[in-house]
Amino acid sequence: MITSFNIGVIGNGSWATALVKVLTDNGQKINWWIRNKASIEYIKRRRHNPNYLSSASFDTALLNMSEDVSEVVNSSDLIVMAVPSAFILEVLQKIDKTSFKNKKILSAIKGLVPGEDVLLNEHLLKQFDVPLENYFAVLGPCHAEEVAAEKLSYLTFSGIDEATTTSIASLFHTSYINTIINSDILGVQYAAVLKNIYALGAGIAHGLEYGDNFLSVYIANSADEMACFLRKMGALHMVVGEHQKVKAPNQRKDINYAASVYLGDLLVTCYSLYSRNRTFGNMIGKGYTVQSAQLEMNMVAEGYYAARCIYNINQKIGAEIPIAETIYKILWARMHPEEGFKMIEEVLV
Amino acid sequence: MITSFNIGVIGNGSWATALVKVLTDNGQKINWWIRNKASIEYIKRRRHNPNYLSSASFDTALLNMSEDVSEVVNSSDLIVMAVPSAFILEVLQKIDKTSFKNKKILSAIKGLVPGEDVLLNEHLLKQFDVPLENYFAVLGPCHAEEVAAEKLSYLTFSGIDEATTTSIASLFHTSYINTIINSDILGVQYAAVLKNIYALGAGIAHGLEYGDNFLSVYIANSADEMACFLRKMGALHMVVGEHQKVKAPNQRKDINYAASVYLGDLLVTCYSLYSRNRTFGNMIGKGYTVQSAQLEMNMVAEGYYAARCIYNINQKIGAEIPIAETIYKILWARMHPEEGFKMIEEVLV
Repeated sequence: MITSFNIGVIGNGSWATALVKVLTDNGQKINWWIRNKASIEYIKRRRHNPNYLSSASFDTALLNMSEDVSEVVNSSDLIVMAVPSAFILEVLQKIDKTSFKNKKILSAIKGLVPGEDVLLNEHLLKQFDVPLENYFAVLGPCHAEEVAAEKLSYLTFSGIDEATTTSIASLFHTSYINTIINSDILGVQYAAVLKNIYALGAGIAHGLEYGDNFLSVYIANSADEMACFLRKMGALHMVVGEHQKVKAPNQRKDINYAASVYLGDLLVTCYSLYSRNRTFGNMIGKGYTVQSAQLEMNMVAEGYYAARCIYNINQKIGAEIPIAETIYKILWARMHPEEGFKMIEEVLV
Repeated sequence: MITSFNIGVIGNGSWATALVKVLTDNGQKINWWIRNKASIEYIKRRRHNPNYLSSASFDTALLNMSEDVSEVVNSSDLIVMAVPSAFILEVLQKIDKTSFKNKKILSAIKGLVPGEDVLLNEHLLKQFDVPLENYFAVLGPCHAEEVAAEKLSYLTFSGIDEATTTSIASLFHTSYINTIINSDILGVQYAAVLKNIYALGAGIAHGLEYGDNFLSVYIANSADEMACFLRKMGALHMVVGEHQKVKAPNQRKDINYAASVYLGDLLVTCYSLYSRNRTFGNMIGKGYTVQSAQLEMNMVAEGYYAARCIYNINQKIGAEIPIAETIYKILWARMHPEEGFKMIEEVLV
């Protein structure tokens, strides 16, 4: 089943650019919000994004670019949210509270809403009255650079409405993108948050000069810990009915956590030498303070905020996640990295 | 509880040398079988192995080296088997059928008995009347080079007699080796065989120019497939009672396959760019025939034989292992690597 959508893409960073490439390669017309008028003119002329993923070129006949985010939202019925999570609130402020009514939202955001420490669906439900059945996520192990190079990659589409999830996924299925359908909409988003913490920790371990043997044990145990958190989170939602519409995916006994959107994404992030989380963690392991690492990198790694957020959430749900909690303490409670990793050493199996 | 053992180590390759370093760093006396008299003289003089892991130096006062394997076996009550699996039968031929009576065997062999396609414990039971309760395995993600460099590594000791397993593990626990106890003696050995197949496949994927996104999905699915095989194997043993003494470990529902000896070892092997399996697979992916890859490398990758063996075993147990079976077909049934990986692409989630 392929339903036709008027697609809007919000954002023009490297991941948004990769998604626009995939959609236009698939012949889809796009309403594309780009903050910067000069970039729009550049793309019209040169057929590629000047700032990100410049090797990806588009069929510009399929692009309807605008610097007015409301216009893009209003003329679309499937809105792909693909700004970095740090900027999501700034963008949403420009959008009228009723604009998302009866529209589908596809989140390509790998992170939590800053300041609120909630998944985007929770924020959209509260602030924009977007019900969970209109909310979908696209996640998976996917360096944008490899998408630009058309190296085969797997994207997982998650949502509680299977038919619509399948329709949305079909828009992205190309010769170099395989799509997977998943109904664990909360779990896949939390997995994407957790993996950044573990990748940051892998960077700390590297900075502390642990070797490959240790790293493999650390990552295997991180995978187990992630599954433990997701199972606990799922069971809790089932018991208290916090998300009553999320029934099926909460049968979490059957969820395969060794799939690409969980374990695969953890692996690609932890083993990537160039990820920001890994680089940031490496500096912490080498003895930089959080402040000096941030100054040096001129940016913040997602895992830094994710560590605090998951720590706070886990105060309520009580999953056994000693690795993530220790990384939180190193980053936020001045625990020495050496001391933290001595504690982590003790829990690994 | 630390029971004292007279320890014999059979083998002087890099892994045997690493284990001798660990044991002697721990103050243990060793009877060490070394095939070559010149190496024995060299080690006495220079305190390190001339051919393997030459950076690891020993307290030679703790070493009783001999080129007579029977002498080493007879004067020991814990025998560490640490020859490459390709040479195991040649070594065992020199040992009297009754020599292992009442002795403990610790297998450090990562592979099957050549020609018979069985785990070493099955061969020792049949040929040397070694009961499973006297048989133990030491496995885990452990590049010997990192042990020589005293980078923290985790070794898993497996056996059905927990108290003795714990005693044996304590002999190896040092400042740079953490030890883990496990009772899944068959599962850990099969995991060590399976991981070589998947690592060889990772090499093929690399040779075919798949990227990191794909590799992470492939490895995550390999982890799931490994767990599937081990669960099926465990359930079967429980049903038919083939290994009736292996009761406890067959409660495989509770086995954590995201632990170092399963997932950790898979990760370190698949992500190691220098492993023989990965190198061999890369040549196959680049279009070499099996024969020309073997000639070029002047050796055989363990995953090559492992693929056939697991394929044969799986004819009986019927686990769903499409990745391993496809790699078998590429290596043994002239399936084109491209064609094989097109099939693998279809099963990944």
